[in-house]
Amino acid sequence: MIIDQIKPTKIFLLMDTNTKEYCYPLVEENLTDHTILTIFRGEKEKTIQTCIQIWKAMSDLPLDRHSLVINMGGGVICDMGGFCASVFKRGLAFINCPTTLLSQVDASIGGKLGIDFENYKNHIGLFREPNHVIISSVFLNTLSQKELLSGCAEMIKHALIDSHVAWEKQKVMNTPIIPSDEQISQSIQVKYRYVLQDPKENGIRKALNFGHTIGHAVESNLIETKNISITHGEAVAIGLIAETWLSNQCLGLNKDNLNSICEYLINFFPKIDLHNISKQQFFDALKQDKKNKGNKIIASLIRDIGDCVIDYPVSAELCWDSLNYYKLLSAQ
Amino acid sequence: MIIDQIKPTKIFLLMDTNTKEYCYPLVEENLTDHTILTIFRGEKEKTIQTCIQIWKAMSDLPLDRHSLVINMGGGVICDMGGFCASVFKRGLAFINCPTTLLSQVDASIGGKLGIDFENYKNHIGLFREPNHVIISSVFLNTLSQKELLSGCAEMIKHALIDSHVAWEKQKVMNTPIIPSDEQISQSIQVKYRYVLQDPKENGIRKALNFGHTIGHAVESNLIETKNISITHGEAVAIGLIAETWLSNQCLGLNKDNLNSICEYLINFFPKIDLHNISKQQFFDALKQDKKNKGNKIIASLIRDIGDCVIDYPVSAELCWDSLNYYKLLSAQ
Repeated sequence: MIIDQIKPTKIFLLMDTNTKEYCYPLVEENLTDHTILTIFRGEKEKTIQTCIQIWKAMSDLPLDRHSLVINMGGGVICDMGGFCASVFKRGLAFINCPTTLLSQVDASIGGKLGIDFENYKNHIGLFREPNHVIISSVFLNTLSQKELLSGCAEMIKHALIDSHVAWEKQKVMNTPIIPSDEQISQSIQVKYRYVLQDPKENGIRKALNFGHTIGHAVESNLIETKNISITHGEAVAIGLIAETWLSNQCLGLNKDNLNSICEYLINFFPKIDLHNISKQQFFDALKQDKKNKGNKIIASLIRDIGDCVIDYPVSAELCWDSLNYYKLLSAQ
Repeated sequence: MIIDQIKPTKIFLLMDTNTKEYCYPLVEENLTDHTILTIFRGEKEKTIQTCIQIWKAMSDLPLDRHSLVINMGGGVICDMGGFCASVFKRGLAFINCPTTLLSQVDASIGGKLGIDFENYKNHIGLFREPNHVIISSVFLNTLSQKELLSGCAEMIKHALIDSHVAWEKQKVMNTPIIPSDEQISQSIQVKYRYVLQDPKENGIRKALNFGHTIGHAVESNLIETKNISITHGEAVAIGLIAETWLSNQCLGLNKDNLNSICEYLINFFPKIDLHNISKQQFFDALKQDKKNKGNKIIASLIRDIGDCVIDYPVSAELCWDSLNYYKLLSAQ
């Protein structure tokens, strides 16, 4: 067992109320002595205030530098728990145990850790790979279709930046979603190949940001307005549609691909009402994007399926137009 | 100029009220366009709440990933500003410009960044070297003798873990303190040699912790009681005396060295009244030391001058006795 190799002085298990109820019972018996901390579920808990709560619990035990943190949950738990572990006493070992499809195919690898700040997504954080990642499909049975759907957006993105072959395979997947171990593994491998080539995201890894310039701006705005609940996957699906349109406008992605990608996405994901987002709010969120350089908004677009162009500057106005393209689309 | 090489999109200059008043006028004219943030001075500001204030200011500008943070001040500013920069949008470039003798010989290199948390020193943080460090003796003229004294404790430690030759040179230094560029440079080089061999402090770098097991526990306690103001150097000086005694008790450091080291230190630094620290408070602080493994308190001691033994387990009781040794010493 991995934990036996690490020989930690103490084990600290971080979960949210959801994973405590549904996932913890599946693994509890296999874990040696450990202390648990359960926090409320949801992206709105991914704050510095929750980190303070976690660091207090770690200090009270106290954990020492040879203790182990296990993060069992979705992206919020893995990102925030990894961040907390990485800066507690300047860095403890941690294992991520992602329990949602989204966190399995996305947050589990790549070493992006952190929290939201002042409504900006993942604004405070760092790069560090977990000491281990444990992925088990047993947790997927605990998820609703909405949660599985959220993970699918990143799987679709992986297919689009990988190859026509991957995209053709992806198009077969439909609701209700029951991803196979093989599909999950293939999707993770796309991400893994990019991360391995460029761990700190100075170049080609930015391809993984396809859909995320618009996606994050939409998500930030909807966190802010607080009247609409949206999953990360739903925001990324909007981003993928908008940025596929931008790819057509800016890089000449051909019309057939534009149509087939957007048709698939708009039918796969529920349509989200974006009329509450004002142009100014949207521009403000775009301006805070971590990818920006100076005043330039930067996106990762596709010239063709499997052919990504990174560091592409786009105007805020054109981004707004891409959102209007989404608003005008309708499912069939 | 270094900044011209970096070509930052924006420059963010962090200072405290002290450096704003005394140091900023010395460099203002040589700096290109920049935004300043001034925070209150002192160790009690080295908190997560101040980090939140810094991150808000960074977000408001906004800084992007190609911006540069310059930390101009003592250890608090360099440690906290470096930490804030390192996790803002997952890491901005930063330059440390240490203005105190203490931060020049200690905090400026080694990459230990962070803040205090719940009265525990440097409890939250990480390892990252600044992109550049600018050390200028022009700032030393702005310091009081008390502040220069604080820096001397680390210089004395460097001499003790380096060699008999360094120690003989150090002993010549006396109050009033006017350190030469050469003395500062030699002291930094001792630290630099250790850091270079072991950047993440897994082994030999721990020699630099000599004096800091007891020193930090005393400092934590005095932060907590809040009625006594003590500089880091004064706490380290107490730690050096206590741990030199421990070195004699545990490793047979010879009596002549014990006497000469402690006599030098007790005459160099003002005697601090430690009667307010209860045994239990002291034990609690020792338990939180980042160097500990499980329940064991770990210290770095010296078998001889220039011959350090790391990872040496000491009992809490013996640590308490070492503090009593300090209490019984008197200056001549």
